[in-house]
Parts: sequence; structure tokens; C-alpha cells
Amino acid sequence: MEKIKHKSDIEIAQEAKMQPITEIAANVGLTEDDLELYGKYKAKLSTEALNRLKEKQPGKIILVTAINPTPAGEGKSTVTVGLGDAFNRIGKKAMIAMREPSLGPTMGIKGGAAGGGYAQVLPMEDINLHFTGDLHAITTANNALAALIDNHLQQGNELRIDQRRIVWKRAVDLNDRALRKVIIGLGGPIQGVPREDGFDITVASEIMAVLCLATDMADLKKRLSRMVVAYNDKKEPVTAGDLGVEGALALILKDAIRPNIVQTIEHTPAMVHGGPFANIAHGCNSVIATTTATRLADYVVTEAGFGADLGAEKFLHIKSRSAGIRPEAVVIVATIRALKMHGGVPKNELGKENVAALTLGVANLKKHIETIKRFGLPPVVAINRFVTDSEEEVRALMDWCEKENVPAALTEVWEKGGEGGIELAHKVLEAIEKGENNFQPLYDLSDSIDEKVRTIVQKVYGGVDVEFSTKAKKQLEDFEKLGWSNLPVCMAKTQYSLSDNPALVGKPTGFIITVREFKPSIGAGFLVALTGEVMTMPGLPKKPAAMNMDVDENGHAVGLF
Amino acid sequence: MEKIKHKSDIEIAQEAKMQPITEIAANVGLTEDDLELYGKYKAKLSTEALNRLKEKQPGKIILVTAINPTPAGEGKSTVTVGLGDAFNRIGKKAMIAMREPSLGPTMGIKGGAAGGGYAQVLPMEDINLHFTGDLHAITTANNALAALIDNHLQQGNELRIDQRRIVWKRAVDLNDRALRKVIIGLGGPIQGVPREDGFDITVASEIMAVLCLATDMADLKKRLSRMVVAYNDKKEPVTAGDLGVEGALALILKDAIRPNIVQTIEHTPAMVHGGPFANIAHGCNSVIATTTATRLADYVVTEAGFGADLGAEKFLHIKSRSAGIRPEAVVIVATIRALKMHGGVPKNELGKENVAALTLGVANLKKHIETIKRFGLPPVVAINRFVTDSEEEVRALMDWCEKENVPAALTEVWEKGGEGGIELAHKVLEAIEKGENNFQPLYDLSDSIDEKVRTIVQKVYGGVDVEFSTKAKKQLEDFEKLGWSNLPVCMAKTQYSLSDNPALVGKPTGFIITVREFKPSIGAGFLVALTGEVMTMPGLPKKPAAMNMDVDENGHAVGLF
Repeated sequence: MEKIKHKSDIEIAQEAKMQPITEIAANVGLTEDDLELYGKYKAKLSTEALNRLKEKQPGKIILVTAINPTPAGEGKSTVTVGLGDAFNRIGKKAMIAMREPSLGPTMGIKGGAAGGGYAQVLPMEDINLHFTGDLHAITTANNALAALIDNHLQQGNELRIDQRRIVWKRAVDLNDRALRKVIIGLGGPIQGVPREDGFDITVASEIMAVLCLATDMADLKKRLSRMVVAYNDKKEPVTAGDLGVEGALALILKDAIRPNIVQTIEHTPAMVHGGPFANIAHGCNSVIATTTATRLADYVVTEAGFGADLGAEKFLHIKSRSAGIRPEAVVIVATIRALKMHGGVPKNELGKENVAALTLGVANLKKHIETIKRFGLPPVVAINRFVTDSEEEVRALMDWCEKENVPAALTEVWEKGGEGGIELAHKVLEAIEKGENNFQPLYDLSDSIDEKVRTIVQKVYGGVDVEFSTKAKKQLEDFEKLGWSNLPVCMAKTQYSLSDNPALVGKPTGFIITVREFKPSIGAGFLVALTGEVMTMPGLPKKPAAMNMDVDENGHAVGLF
Repeated sequence: MEKIKHKSDIEIAQEAKMQPITEIAANVGLTEDDLELYGKYKAKLSTEALNRLKEKQPGKIILVTAINPTPAGEGKSTVTVGLGDAFNRIGKKAMIAMREPSLGPTMGIKGGAAGGGYAQVLPMEDINLHFTGDLHAITTANNALAALIDNHLQQGNELRIDQRRIVWKRAVDLNDRALRKVIIGLGGPIQGVPREDGFDITVASEIMAVLCLATDMADLKKRLSRMVVAYNDKKEPVTAGDLGVEGALALILKDAIRPNIVQTIEHTPAMVHGGPFANIAHGCNSVIATTTATRLADYVVTEAGFGADLGAEKFLHIKSRSAGIRPEAVVIVATIRALKMHGGVPKNELGKENVAALTLGVANLKKHIETIKRFGLPPVVAINRFVTDSEEEVRALMDWCEKENVPAALTEVWEKGGEGGIELAHKVLEAIEKGENNFQPLYDLSDSIDEKVRTIVQKVYGGVDVEFSTKAKKQLEDFEKLGWSNLPVCMAKTQYSLSDNPALVGKPTGFIITVREFKPSIGAGFLVALTGEVMTMPGLPKKPAAMNMDVDENGHAVGLF
């Protein structure tokens, strides 16, 4: 993301000298028996270790979120990694908990999901390819369930599934637009029952969200069992449990449920585990990874997807509730470049100083600061510095933060690693030590679903009201009868704007959000409110990143990033 | 497979005490640095170790094959494992090289692919689930290539691919009949180009065959590059290399290409790596695993799929040529039950003594013995004993072998592990030490393709002649022009009969084999001759094995087998 890179992310990653993961884990009190190694530098925690650690007192969580993303880039994952490193540099025992990437975007558009520059998690090649196989296990479980549904149709359809109302889609962990809408079961009576179907990218599978919200194997099985896969001829939901296959799905996921431990370039231990979409799902790494990390370190730096309107809101309303956790402070990552875009500057003019645009765009940051305060949590602004930022611009933004009475720090973690995040770490510690934490969700689970949505729209997005389509209204009636009304809401909205119109950058006002349809994710335990079209299967660009990839005779990746 | 089991395979496997794989590997001279661990009991060999071992003198290969399979079961994998154990018991340094199983059949029909009883490779749960992720990597590479082909169509189709002549199919490692024939790319111009497509099970992907025949990373890339994915509007082949994506595919396969090392219940080291179909592919574990094992042990016991007419023929004509290896002896596994089925006894009457049927059915064994001798190799018959076998039947079969002057031994490896294979091990050693090995392929690569097929039909199957369909004849002309005529042939034929009619058990005579069509696998390096319908995507039964599967709170598999 940052400009004027002397080395690429993969060059920095390949030059970095890793320590054996057994040593990294030993630093946080894990023995070799607690680990299942995947090579020398990756491991999964054993079931025994996970059970034992539950008894320990938890450390403090710092949530990293951001302003609404722009094509200029904010570097939220990079700040997450750099802040974890900075905590260790100032003598605090810290860990990082973040999402694991999907292979689809890796093959499609150049760009990794393991931090950047000198603030990366390693081994970056492995993490961006198969890692420890978690995504493959989820793909397999997703598709095994799909095969079992179609086999149920084929073998007599005892549950009287309406083949036009099968809502469970198949999945691949790739960008493959040709699989978005398909017809399956062609070829005659022994080749299955013909019907419309479609494929999502694996991170959009409900199983990914289920795995990330499950607290242990028993909870995983309960959630898998609850997943609605279809409706029968009476329009009643049919679940994976009705098919009797939650045990098989759990078996396929028995290793994937256990978190992965790796290290940063500076040898800070990092849990990299789970990565659900941040629109149709909640966009956070797994509950098990985060809560386990809190038992191993005094400070756990974790991130949520997209901007604070989506990622942080879901962390605080969905993940926090599921896991029984709360953050002690919330870091909001902003860049001067991105704020200038929110102030109306086009991407190709970001190199020019423009304090006026910055001052305008800062309204976006301001809204997210207010939201975090509204949740009763202390915000800290991280200004992720680029070489193109002028002194004048930096001063203007810092002055603004001081005037707003919000702690802020410049970060230079891409270029300097943890060293570039020390000031931020101090500000975060101060915010935590002040103890001004009165965390409170913005809605109660007992609120009606339309109230929950309205609360988010008005209090988090700054919108005027919500409109529900006729279909959505009908669904809300059905959900009431099915006893689903007490679930939290998961908003599927564009990440680029506080509104549901991606063109409205900055701080739009007076807008109404339209909920087109709900998608019940009963296994995950939330109701997805769809606003506008949500892409759950990306396509490949004209020149996919795959065309530049290779592997040398020693098995090292070439052209991966 | 064997009757009167006091314990199930999974019970025996879970009770077995494994040694750390580092110790197992140390016994064959591998250091910890040579290994990339996947937990404590599985590892992949490092690229450095693979390169270093190439310089060492190879040990001897023993190929395990069988009579034509029957529903009565032969236990070829079990004998392979037990024979490896037996070699170690008599003081020989031995290893096993075998295929890794596919998840599809595991979820579909009860039955594993890692030996049985006390002759199993461990950890059996892992090997039968995700193992080290090789199959997932192959699925991903297969589907990445498919996505890149469809993206090529979508982005302007520079190579002028005829969308009706795309021969590259998608893959899942599951039994999913509804995916056999599908239509993709529906939904309008931004959702891809609509066309007919289909999914194969992963083990039927040409990438599986390519990975199993590649000798190193450079060879892998060459083979990937050669794979024909479609034909253009001039009916010329379009390859993965034309799309420029062989580097990306190789990158996805960079770990999968390295063999896995595990252990048997008796701690014999075993390479379990790769598992292509034995009909549309060559049905043997990877060349890299087999040749590496020969550098680590004096005796390597390896198997080939189905009966000797398919598996051994392909091992000797395809894998041996690719790898520059030959077996020193060939074990043919037979059971009295299966021979009685070849003599006409139905499955429900196998419990009754029937020497007459046995004497009739032995013609099937006799044909395979002749085939192995025809290749210039010494055969040894392994009679895999079942408790239902009568003394009279055993005596009749042993007498017959003596009369035929072919060494034979009773094996009881399911119940007794290596102890039950010691007699067989001695017979194999005697056969090797006699030195009557004049290995010679039955056809030359310079023979015409129809001559190659005819040679196999007449010399291996005992058929009268071959008939080629009009389509197959036309293809042979095309292949000639394309320069593919010097490739070996890979026969896709029913495994149940020496003929192409599965009902003709025993030793059918006077039959003609019909080649319906050829499927060029130019990356793998063979031309598949299709006789009859070949199923490349299995279906699930009415009660899939998945319904009985579960995982307990400690992460252990329940109901897996």
C-alpha cells in the first residue's frame, strides 16, 4: 500500500530470520506438547492446551479498526502487527490475533493479508497459500454438506426438501465468476436432481462464520447442526442437523477449529485463525484464537474487517457477545491520503499537499471516533504515515485530534516495524490505564430486529432511517414465528461509505438505508441484513496475479507479491 | 474386508502406540532438518533432503499386485503393509510406498485405504481425512486452472478457445453425483460465458497423475505446462502453458510434490504419497516417493491399483519408464474367497468349502502369473488367509502353486501384522536372489498406438483383438499429426474382469476389447484408451458413511471406519 517501497513485502519476508515456533511459543508458556507443528514455523495448539488455558485469567484486548476504506489504503493489518511488536518492544507481554487469508484474492489481485513491510506475520508464503489447511477443511465441509443435500434429494427426499428452496451453496476458495450461477444434476435420473445452484468463495461460507464464533467442539457441533440448508414443502427450515450430518462436518473440521500460532518479523507470537467475510459475516478472526491469546499474553492486539461501521460494530455486537469479551481500547487507523480521498481528492492527486481536503475528509474519522465512544470505549487514532504526507498535513491532523481531545499517534510500522508503533502503544496504554471503559452494546438482543437495524443505522452510520423491502418485511414476520428474532443483526453494506451508496465518501448525512432482504445464518447465530448487492464470489481481473507466479527449484515462491 | 473381526480397524489404529516420526525417520538416516513435521507423527521430506538422496544407490523394489478384484476382497494394501513389516522383522531394512486416500469414498462408503487390522499405516484418522493437504492442493490447482480458463473466455478469449471444446473439468475431493454434468456461467454478461462443464473427483484430475509421475519441480512444471485444457477454433490444442499459468499451478503444488513419511503399527517407515485413479490414470503412488524410498531402504514394498491387468501393467509400462525403475519381484495377492468367486460362487456362499470352484477360479490367478513372467519378472503368490478358508482349500491352492512351479506363501497380516507375512518375505527374497529378472516392457514407445493397445489386450488380458470406434480411429490420426503417438497407453477398463465386461470373471477367452474413445493426458504423458463407461465422479449411497461420523471433545474421530 505505502509508496516508495525499496523492497517488496515478499522480499522483506523472505529475508527475515524466523525463530522456531517452539521457541516463540515457549515465550508465552506453551510447551512442545501443547503444539502440533506444521513445519518449523507454524503450529496448531493441542486440544489439551486449549482446555487447560481456559482456566487462566485473561489479558486485555485492543481492537484495531479503521475509517471507511478507500483505494488509497489504510494498512489496518500492518498497524495491528506493528502495534503488537511495539508492545513487546516496551516490555509488555503481547500477542496478535488476526484473520487468515483466502487463496482466491491471492491468485486474483496482487495483495496479501498478513501485514506489510516490516510489520508482517511469517512465514508469509505459507500463510498466503495453504497455511495449515483450515480453509481447505471449510471448503470440504461446505461441499460435503452440499453433496449430502443433493444425495438426500436423489435417494427419495424423506425430509421433503423443496428443491427450489435449497439455500446451501457450494464453495471454492478461488475467484471464479463462472461458478456464481450454475445448474447442476443434469444428465438423467442417475446423475442427480437438476436444480439451480451457485458457488461462493469459501470465506463466505456460513461454516467459516460458525468456526470463528464457536467456543469449543461441542459448541461447533451445535452451530453446525442449526445451519439452515433448505426449506421443505411446508416452507419450514431444514437444517444440517435434520440431515444428521453435523458429526461428519465436525470431524472434517476437527483440526481447523484449533488456532494457528506463527510469529511476526520481530518474533511476536501471533494467532492467525479464521477469516469470515466482513459483509455477509462478522469479519473477525476466531473466538477461540482471541480468547486463547488472552490467556497467553497480557495484551492481545486484534483487528476487525473494513471500517469501524462494519468491522468494529460486528466485533462489539456479535463476536464480543459470543465470546464474553470486550476490548479495553479501540485503535482507529487512518491515513492522510485516505482522509483526503474522503475530502474529495481523486487517487491520482493524492501526492499533492491538500490541507483543505484533509480537513473536510476528517469528518469520516470523527464519525468513527464518536461511534467507539458511544459504545463506551476509549478510541485512539493511529495515523499510518506515508512518505508523501506533508509536515503541514500531519500537523493539521494532529492538531485536530488534540482539539477533539482524542489521543493520537503517528505510526511508521511498515518501514520501521514495532519501533514505528511505540508512540501508539504508549497512547493505547494510557487510554487503558485511564480506565474510562463503560462498554455497552448499542442494542439489546431482546429488541425487535427492525429496531436493531435502526439502531445501527442511526447510531453507527449516522443515517436517518431504514426502509425494509416487502420481502424483508415478510421475512421478519417469518423469523418471529421461527423464534429467530432474538439474534443479533449482521449488516451487509458497502465498506466504502457510511451509507449504502459507495460513492458517498466522507460523512454523508440525511441518508436512508434500504434492507433488501435478510439471510438467516442460524448456525453462526445472526441475521444478515442485505443492503444492495453483495458479491460472495469475486471474479478474476484481465491479468490475474497468477500469471506472474512461479516456484524455484528450492521450492521458494516467486512473484507471490 | 476379513471376516470375524474382534476389533475394527479404527480401534486397532487408535490403540496402537506410535513413535515420533522423527525417530522413525532417524532409523532410515533422515535428520530432523530433513523433515517438515505435520504434527508428531507425519512429515514431509525437505527439498534439500530429496535432492541429496538422489545421489545415493537405490535399493530393490517389490511390487504388490493382485488377481482381478471381487466383492469378496483381496487385501492388497494390507499385504503391502504386512510384507514391509515382515521384511523388517527378518532383519532387512525395508520401507513401504503406497497411495494416499481420497476423502470422497471415506465419506461415502465405509472403508479406508491405509491397510487393515494389524497391517495399517498410522495415524489412520489423519491419513483418511486431510493428511498433509496434498489432495486439497491438487483440487485447488485443478480449479484455479479452470477459473483461469473461464476468465480467459470472459476477458476477450485471445487464444480463440472454442468454448464447446474445453476439456478441462473442475474437481472436488468428494462423491457428488449432482456435479457430474453442470452448466456454468449463467446470469448474464458479467457472470462469465455460459457453457457445459462437469466435476471429477480430485484423484481423477490429470494434475494428480502429473504430480505422481513428475521426477522433480522442473519436471512438474513441464508436465503442467503440457496439459491440454481445450481446443481452439482451428481444433488445435490449447495448453496450460499457452495460458501462462504453469508457474502458479506449481506454486500451489510446491508442498504437495514432496512425499509424506508415516509409520506402520510396527513402526516400519512408509511413504504415503499421491493416489491417481487406476482406470483413467496409472494408479500408483508418486515416483518421487518410490524412488526416494529406494534411497532410504534396501527393500521398498509398493503397490499398484486394481488387478495385475491394470495396476501392474501400468506400473511396468508407465511408472517404471517415467522413473527409470523396475521391480525385482512381483507379489500377486489372491484369496481363496475371491478365487471361488472367479470360479462362479456367489458372495453369500463363500463361507462354504468349494474346492471345485476354487480350482476353476484359479485360472484368473494363472493368467496374472503368466503376465508377470511375460514381463520377465519373478512372481510370488500371496494367499491372504481368511478364517473361513478350509484346510482342504488351502492345500488345494498351495498344491496348485507348487505344480505350476510358482513360489507361494500364506499370509495372515491382518490378524498378526508382520509376523503373518514372514513366510512371504522369505519367498520374495528367494525369488530376488535367484536373479531371474529379465524385465522388458511388452511394447516399445515407437510402436503405433493401436499396436500398443493390441499388445496389452492380447498379452495381458488374453483377448483376441481390439476394435476401435470411428471416433477413436479419427483421434489416432489426429494424435499422429500432433506428435503424440510415441506416448504409452493407459487403459481404462473395468477392474473386475480381464475383458471389458465386468460380468466375465475367471479367465474369459475369445473376447474382443472395444476402444470407444481416447483421452489424451499429455501432461501426465499417456493416452487413455476408454473401454466402456468410466466413472470419474462417484455418487453417495442411500446411507452415506458420513451419517455415522462424529468427533469427541478430545478431537478424536468416532465412526470413521
